[in-house]
Amino acid sequence: MNKIKAGIVGATGYAGVELLRLLISHPNVDVVGLSSVSFEGQSIDQVYPNLHSWCSDVLTSPEEFIPQCDVVFASLPHGLSEPLAKQCLEAGAVFIDLGADFRLNDKEEYAYWYKKEYTDMTLHEKSAYCIPELHRDRIKDVPIIGNPGCYPTSIALGITPAIKAGIIDTTHIIIDSKSGVTGAGRGLKQNTHYPEANEAFSAYAAGNHRHTPEIEQTLSEIAGSKVSVTFVPHLLPVNRGIESTIYTKLTSDVSVADVRKIYTDAYENERFVRVLPDGEYANIRNVKFSNFCDISIHMDSRTNTLIISSAIDNMVKGAAGQAIQNMNIRFALGEDIGLIIPPPAF
Amino acid sequence: MNKIKAGIVGATGYAGVELLRLLISHPNVDVVGLSSVSFEGQSIDQVYPNLHSWCSDVLTSPEEFIPQCDVVFASLPHGLSEPLAKQCLEAGAVFIDLGADFRLNDKEEYAYWYKKEYTDMTLHEKSAYCIPELHRDRIKDVPIIGNPGCYPTSIALGITPAIKAGIIDTTHIIIDSKSGVTGAGRGLKQNTHYPEANEAFSAYAAGNHRHTPEIEQTLSEIAGSKVSVTFVPHLLPVNRGIESTIYTKLTSDVSVADVRKIYTDAYENERFVRVLPDGEYANIRNVKFSNFCDISIHMDSRTNTLIISSAIDNMVKGAAGQAIQNMNIRFALGEDIGLIIPPPAF
Amino acid sequence: MNKIKAGIVGATGYAGVELLRLLISHPNVDVVGLSSVSFEGQSIDQVYPNLHSWCSDVLTSPEEFIPQCDVVFASLPHGLSEPLAKQCLEAGAVFIDLGADFRLNDKEEYAYWYKKEYTDMTLHEKSAYCIPELHRDRIKDVPIIGNPGCYPTSIALGITPAIKAGIIDTTHIIIDSKSGVTGAGRGLKQNTHYPEANEAFSAYAAGNHRHTPEIEQTLSEIAGSKVSVTFVPHLLPVNRGIESTIYTKLTSDVSVADVRKIYTDAYENERFVRVLPDGEYANIRNVKFSNFCDISIHMDSRTNTLIISSAIDNMVKGAAGQAIQNMNIRFALGEDIGLIIPPPAF
Amino acid sequence: MNKIKAGIVGATGYAGVELLRLLISHPNVDVVGLSSVSFEGQSIDQVYPNLHSWCSDVLTSPEEFIPQCDVVFASLPHGLSEPLAKQCLEAGAVFIDLGADFRLNDKEEYAYWYKKEYTDMTLHEKSAYCIPELHRDRIKDVPIIGNPGCYPTSIALGITPAIKAGIIDTTHIIIDSKSGVTGAGRGLKQNTHYPEANEAFSAYAAGNHRHTPEIEQTLSEIAGSKVSVTFVPHLLPVNRGIESTIYTKLTSDVSVADVRKIYTDAYENERFVRVLPDGEYANIRNVKFSNFCDISIHMDSRTNTLIISSAIDNMVKGAAGQAIQNMNIRFALGEDIGLIIPPPAF
Repeated sequence: MNKIKAGIVGATGYAGVELLRLLISHPNVDVVGLSSVSFEGQSIDQVYPNLHSWCSDVLTSPEEFIPQCDVVFASLPHGLSEPLAKQCLEAGAVFIDLGADFRLNDKEEYAYWYKKEYTDMTLHEKSAYCIPELHRDRIKDVPIIGNPGCYPTSIALGITPAIKAGIIDTTHIIIDSKSGVTGAGRGLKQNTHYPEANEAFSAYAAGNHRHTPEIEQTLSEIAGSKVSVTFVPHLLPVNRGIESTIYTKLTSDVSVADVRKIYTDAYENERFVRVLPDGEYANIRNVKFSNFCDISIHMDSRTNTLIISSAIDNMVKGAAGQAIQNMNIRFALGEDIGLIIPPPAF
Repeated sequence: MNKIKAGIVGATGYAGVELLRLLISHPNVDVVGLSSVSFEGQSIDQVYPNLHSWCSDVLTSPEEFIPQCDVVFASLPHGLSEPLAKQCLEAGAVFIDLGADFRLNDKEEYAYWYKKEYTDMTLHEKSAYCIPELHRDRIKDVPIIGNPGCYPTSIALGITPAIKAGIIDTTHIIIDSKSGVTGAGRGLKQNTHYPEANEAFSAYAAGNHRHTPEIEQTLSEIAGSKVSVTFVPHLLPVNRGIESTIYTKLTSDVSVADVRKIYTDAYENERFVRVLPDGEYANIRNVKFSNFCDISIHMDSRTNTLIISSAIDNMVKGAAGQAIQNMNIRFALGEDIGLIIPPPAF
Repeated sequence: MNKIKAGIVGATGYAGVELLRLLISHPNVDVVGLSSVSFEGQSIDQVYPNLHSWCSDVLTSPEEFIPQCDVVFASLPHGLSEPLAKQCLEAGAVFIDLGADFRLNDKEEYAYWYKKEYTDMTLHEKSAYCIPELHRDRIKDVPIIGNPGCYPTSIALGITPAIKAGIIDTTHIIIDSKSGVTGAGRGLKQNTHYPEANEAFSAYAAGNHRHTPEIEQTLSEIAGSKVSVTFVPHLLPVNRGIESTIYTKLTSDVSVADVRKIYTDAYENERFVRVLPDGEYANIRNVKFSNFCDISIHMDSRTNTLIISSAIDNMVKGAAGQAIQNMNIRFALGEDIGLIIPPPAF
Repeated sequence: MNKIKAGIVGATGYAGVELLRLLISHPNVDVVGLSSVSFEGQSIDQVYPNLHSWCSDVLTSPEEFIPQCDVVFASLPHGLSEPLAKQCLEAGAVFIDLGADFRLNDKEEYAYWYKKEYTDMTLHEKSAYCIPELHRDRIKDVPIIGNPGCYPTSIALGITPAIKAGIIDTTHIIIDSKSGVTGAGRGLKQNTHYPEANEAFSAYAAGNHRHTPEIEQTLSEIAGSKVSVTFVPHLLPVNRGIESTIYTKLTSDVSVADVRKIYTDAYENERFVRVLPDGEYANIRNVKFSNFCDISIHMDSRTNTLIISSAIDNMVKGAAGQAIQNMNIRFALGEDIGLIIPPPAF
């Protein structure tokens, strides 16, 4: 079989370079182009010396490689993807957007949260948002795939089985998430300067993070009714990983073992979701560098509260790995190809 | 004035040695005795070389110094404090317990959560639990002081003004706390081994941590009715600091500015509580090595949820600093003496 | 081709579990047995939950799997490998020792530094110590392979080209090395307890670390005369990685570009050594999780000193990865099979 | 006694804000002015929220407070101090420069290393460079004090007694130093962005760091002859602390105990230098947040090499603390006033 020709727009961002790392090891992919506005003309391994001897492609502009591509990944600030999607559509390349521009179906939600407008709704009509474990059937033919956000991935995988089983109150769910610093990207900011992020911890964007509508969109679809969440992210002094602790009210008389059974059944055939046994807690340590989502289930019977802890690597299952999983589905490859990576113990 | 003669039982534990560090700088205290079961016979600076040139007292047993003491601090595993308290009572020394044995009023709660029994209720009747900002009047004369737990301190200070103002539903409060690794103590365990705690993050004891009844006891007293909480602690890869994010349902139509005003008023005269201005988040970085509790106030109007973030140094306001604050109150000293420490920026 | 059947003795140590992680992804290997004294009877993924869904083999004793093995890896404290080597020899399995018992040729050196005696010299005569880039020809047929120590690997690769080129004084070389905490193993110790290793840094074993004779043995062979080194290791607050800064006196009039050329030529055909271009420094960040050794070359012309910085992942090129590289050589596989891992950027 | 009126130029840099933290607790000092180019018009606690309730002075320009000051501290990039020094001289204020402009006596050395020129030599003639333990007598009357660099402080204190005792070869000393990230300042750079500094380690400026001439100047004065050093700094993933490992050739037949005695005698009356007992290693952990320099002494008898490890807090003894120590000397206060801080254990 011919290899899939792939290009990466925004290759020097953290999600972009992580995608490159994974695609280098993907047996069915050839990377044929890398672009970067900031580093155009330099080779990628000048910017990222970890890539010496792996890739010394020169960073160029998207126009130069889109025509040769079967698939184009973009990892850009929001508001920049529509023209790229259009170019890909015209060139016959599948476009997988790791940014936010093809995640929200409702253009008013997008306008409200992102302070920008969708300018070409036909593009959005041809796109699908896809967390593979929930939506893989949607993307078998679409030309544009909205790759999910990192927080929403950990959260949707963590709550979905409970919603589907009808055991929780979906009118209000509390979600307390913590993300490693790569989630804030490669751009320099004071709060991610080493001496200010190290030995530090705080919430941010409490109740108004842009991932909120994406979480509610996914959960509402599953519930078949409007789900509201209170979502508070925190900045965690580690490089990689998101842990989300989710608090929901039980509406049924179920034991923690019953709930664990619901989850185990729900994810029985999923290679990338691991429902942990009794006594274990989801820990970002155990999913780092891999495409797994680990889920542990706990109960506070005193208050009838179901507590779900969900952990992913924000850069893999929360970004680059999931994009490859989506590509695999779209190109009818085995879903785990290029992602068969046992997470390291430390 | 004569200096207060102080002894520390359990001086080589993390709370013990932090207490020693602070007492060394306290202008009204002389440390006259240090005990340690594990290191008896060694000098404290052999165990903690940071103390070279500050203190080379030999570690001994409590019996040797209690008779000379005006105040004895103990930082021991639960179940060991009653006999010490009795000895101090007989010797006329104030006993300040940094452990858990004098925190819960209800002996059945203690038995349920700690799997041990109070053996001498008269001791407990002579004791008082004290978070100074809430209970300072209780301890002006008591011979035994139950020093609060670290999580309960951050949480009680974070919620109390909202409860007192009657603006929140107290039937169920969700508390998501994160603690630095010193909270787990000096004892060696696999999950606090550097390579397993570093670049890691997970919940533990979800819904069943022993600080739960202490939190509920304090909040219920304030509310005048039974308050239930769901409390989930997490282990944070930093040395020091606790951040608690508290989720409560608003029952009144108040703005975030109204709530901030309630808090600012409530803590107006408190040296160690800082209610942060609009736009700032409580961060453990800003309270480290100090006795402060920083509180920031946020609102998710979409779901009518009040979100409080509270940050302390678990070793200072959560343990040794608060013990000294309690000692200062008990001995009628200025409450901030020995604790006038601007937190470092990094 | 039939797969190589491999067993791991000491599979729950850090080097053991890292070896397992890498062997799981090795296309030519089947892991047929894992042993552990401490966890016998448990499954490996109970001890290391990162391995859920990858390996749930029960930990057993070496006797149970050695008879089926083509190769047995052991990662044990020194002094325990000889009887295992003998068993393997009798069973016809290649024995690769990640411990220290087959590294030193001179039994007196071993006795002096390790305070134990070789008890069966015939085993040692049948063994070979092998850093593949320096000694690969030695192990094509040997039944017992002494896998190098982590520090000596970074150092030997860092100095060898300069010695071979005859440009430095070999009578005294100064080596200042820094190792991540996994180098100290999984066993709990006070100095690797998170709060005591974090935000800390110090030397240890200055001038008397047990890797010293191994370093001198390798360098002396290359020089053809006795090389002496002063070696001071330090404990670095990271999980993985060793950086060695090596100071040598130049004896020839060469420029830094000349020296870089010597190194580039020396490692021209080596997949796992990267000589960095002018302006870059070897950084453990760029080799983590991979089998690379990055080498950067610097000069202090004012003092005629050649400074070499060499960085590896102590757990991969410094232990498990190099063991697999040695296995690949011994079994006539491509040397990089199972080790084709681009290091992550972060 | 009247308090000393102090101003800080560059108060929002890391050394500046650390100085402010320490001066707030200094019983003989009133801070009367803070300046910052970047944040002029804001209050200091807006920039550094750790200072809430301690200091909310508005950042202004130096001109506004120099006339009221008894002492002015400046912490600025090199090349900016001369005009400030002049202003202070004219205003009758002592000027203490934490930057590099008054450290080197030789204007050619300054020009060579800093690529700038001294423009007013009379200022330099009125200034003195002072590591208090070595040069305190020099500054009793001078109007301008050059506060030492962080690396040179750790190194000069570490080597001086050996040079004075005449036991080492001073023609070439090897110094391998490691500094926490605050040493790189508050300014944002890619290599100090959290995800790139965390779990990373490398050398930088090998053999050409600007602290080299300062080190050689101090040591040469002590030796009475030109001392050459090879100095290689490394960036250490911690917030605070410098450890320098110093390698020198012994020229006398002395034991490690003899050398320790030389050091203990040399620093007998020094409050801020602690020569560690046999078996201990200088660790940045034990000096953090304090003005101490811990020194441990080791020997590699096999190669006749004396190894000194020296640890300081780069922000205290390496910058702000030492500046206060110099101020105390200059104003005839007790040298340790405001610096009586037991370092924390963690």
